[in-house]
Amino acid sequence: MFTIVAERINCTRKMIREATENRDAAFIQGEVLKQAEAGATYIDVNAGAHPDTEVENMLWLLEQVQSVSKLPISLDSASPRVLEAGLAVLDGRQAMINSISLEEGKAARLLPFVQQYQTTVIALCLGSEGMPNTGEERCEFASRLIAITRAAGVEDDRVFIDPLVRCVSAENEQGAEFLKGVRLIHAAFPAVHFCAGLSNVSYGLPQRTLLNRAFLSLAIWEGLDGAIIDPTDKGVLAQLYATLAVAGMDEYCMEYMSAVREGVIA
Amino acid sequence: MFTIVAERINCTRKMIREATENRDAAFIQGEVLKQAEAGATYIDVNAGAHPDTEVENMLWLLEQVQSVSKLPISLDSASPRVLEAGLAVLDGRQAMINSISLEEGKAARLLPFVQQYQTTVIALCLGSEGMPNTGEERCEFASRLIAITRAAGVEDDRVFIDPLVRCVSAENEQGAEFLKGVRLIHAAFPAVHFCAGLSNVSYGLPQRTLLNRAFLSLAIWEGLDGAIIDPTDKGVLAQLYATLAVAGMDEYCMEYMSAVREGVIA
Repeated sequence: MFTIVAERINCTRKMIREATENRDAAFIQGEVLKQAEAGATYIDVNAGAHPDTEVENMLWLLEQVQSVSKLPISLDSASPRVLEAGLAVLDGRQAMINSISLEEGKAARLLPFVQQYQTTVIALCLGSEGMPNTGEERCEFASRLIAITRAAGVEDDRVFIDPLVRCVSAENEQGAEFLKGVRLIHAAFPAVHFCAGLSNVSYGLPQRTLLNRAFLSLAIWEGLDGAIIDPTDKGVLAQLYATLAVAGMDEYCMEYMSAVREGVIA
Repeated sequence: MFTIVAERINCTRKMIREATENRDAAFIQGEVLKQAEAGATYIDVNAGAHPDTEVENMLWLLEQVQSVSKLPISLDSASPRVLEAGLAVLDGRQAMINSISLEEGKAARLLPFVQQYQTTVIALCLGSEGMPNTGEERCEFASRLIAITRAAGVEDDRVFIDPLVRCVSAENEQGAEFLKGVRLIHAAFPAVHFCAGLSNVSYGLPQRTLLNRAFLSLAIWEGLDGAIIDPTDKGVLAQLYATLAVAGMDEYCMEYMSAVREGVIA
């Protein structure tokens, strides 16, 4: 099963920010339902990054999500304080913490909550020393992250590694190095999952969706089993299910056939 | 450079068959020009398989292609007799023979023409004993083909291996085994090229173009550097150039940028 972390409820998007500021519950609930119907595994909730409003916006958004869907929720914030406040109001459903990294103190502060609430967690290959360059460095960052989650008692299958996508416009080889990272991490830690935001790959280039979709295919082939995407984008879902089918990762092509039948792809 | 063998001039397609039977030169010439403008490397010419008409149709089609384009031509026939007649009327331009295989006697009969006309040649992983199943078998078939072309004095870089695409609807793993075959052949024979017809992968499934495009991406990533496609299909070219860009196979993303600028992709 591919994990779709549905990205639309994100206050860095203008429509969502305005609906959140105006407390337009119907709009937010509609966005949740659209993503649920399109096959989301988690509903990601990002309440923006303004320190004065992020907690209250997060709590209001979580109320809207929980009122219309029973799906797991991904709490998406750079602030441990916001994540903690969000976890406290969840109704016992599965949650994901988005995210920990190797940046100083971040994992140590958040892992107790991963254990207390038995959440899953996205572990981003990013350290205080900066971003990984090669596939090997990505695997080394992942190893360090997994050593930390294991030490905290978190089973590997609750960990979703994000090997960190960087744009190919600045450095041509960054796409290939990410893919190599996925391959190495998948081989070294077969029980660990992935959840990556892929769209950075196309930063600075025209027709970005073309690049994002091709990159999704290659990453799936190398072992990526989860991504932060918009499941209401029929093109990206088409790429996802078609890739699983031709890669032999969809038994009897049943998920592909059902996606075609239900009209979630085009 | 990715080799695009442009597939539209094929008498198994109804419009082309009718235009050929009616000697509608303008229509055929238009099809050639469309493919040339879209970036074809070779114009493939297939005059159908009817023994009474294939030679004369091939000669007429070649006359049309040569009258409007200087592009290399891929002579596409199961009949050595047709290929030989076609080669004799070419105006000295680069030709490709499509194809030899391990079927009894076929390579031996055709390789003298590969040498006489210094053509390139598609070598299909198909033997008298049938089709390869695994990636390893595809590489083994390729090894035998390359032993034969080398013995005939044909340099590796004039050989385009087709590892034989089989449909995933009947056997789920056939897509993955093809991809593994590409990887193994590419590693074992780095100077050899590829030219595969990919669309069989989706036989028997709905929305076949989605599957064909995703499969193209994966095959490129594993080393496929040529395919028989319709270059006037903007979707397939988009997948092609986007994949080369994110895979680090398009320096500075220049081919992608130029394809966007020229409007050959969408």
